[in-house]
Amino acid sequence: MITILCVGKIKESYLNDMINDYKKRISKYEKIEIIEVKDNVDIEKETQELKKYINSKDYIIALEIEGKNFTSEEFAKRLDNIYLTNSHITFVIGSSNGLSDEIKKQANLALSFSSFTFPHGLFRAILLEQIYRAFKINNNESYHK
Amino acid sequence: MITILCVGKIKESYLNDMINDYKKRISKYEKIEIIEVKDNVDIEKETQELKKYINSKDYIIALEIEGKNFTSEEFAKRLDNIYLTNSHITFVIGSSNGLSDEIKKQANLALSFSSFTFPHGLFRAILLEQIYRAFKINNNESYHK
Repeated sequence: MITILCVGKIKESYLNDMINDYKKRISKYEKIEIIEVKDNVDIEKETQELKKYINSKDYIIALEIEGKNFTSEEFAKRLDNIYLTNSHITFVIGSSNGLSDEIKKQANLALSFSSFTFPHGLFRAILLEQIYRAFKINNNESYHK
Repeated sequence: MITILCVGKIKESYLNDMINDYKKRISKYEKIEIIEVKDNVDIEKETQELKKYINSKDYIIALEIEGKNFTSEEFAKRLDNIYLTNSHITFVIGSSNGLSDEIKKQANLALSFSSFTFPHGLFRAILLEQIYRAFKINNNESYHK
């Protein structure tokens, strides 16, 4: 089971289309849900909203610009390893204000995609594509695009 | 003037929509064109196709997974600096086979977005968003999404 826990609505229809496309593709391999909490200028309130959906029994991956870098192959291997001992992985994507220290501390892994800052909606699509790619890699299926 | 020199057609309409959206947004700041050459399993032929559009007078930025990392602010500053002495920047995005050494050598800068591999179409969208973000930063305009 994969949960994408994120903040704020996405306005652009092309991003929603991309996210739905990859969500559908991933669902052939694994159950996946996207939980969207309301964005809040008060990061403490946002944190409390996010925490409602964070279960300490699950493997929590926080997306942070200062997190660890992986290649696609390393990330695929890491997901494979996590699944040996966990059945539920929750990815937490913050708003443009980032994640609070409280959530960062609770995470099992801090993952970074880039030193660049991306819009949160585009980032959600990028993460889903990479999770899909990981399943393709772990199933020895070709995927070149 | 900005040229995005890239390889292969994009099939997904949501990616074409995103690319067109950012192209339009960038065009408020700078003239921009996207040149798409045919992808070719023969990297030598692909290189010759790309080279037709690479002018050694222009500032050439090659997108490479092993290239230099920037933050969005550093990238914005770098673009600003390049424009002091160059009026035309060409970004070259290879196919999934990457760029040939010949093109890499010709480049003034090797730029990396991530240690992850992305689909070439999604990557084109990511690059355009970041160029747009750079113009917003350099014009002191807010952009949080």
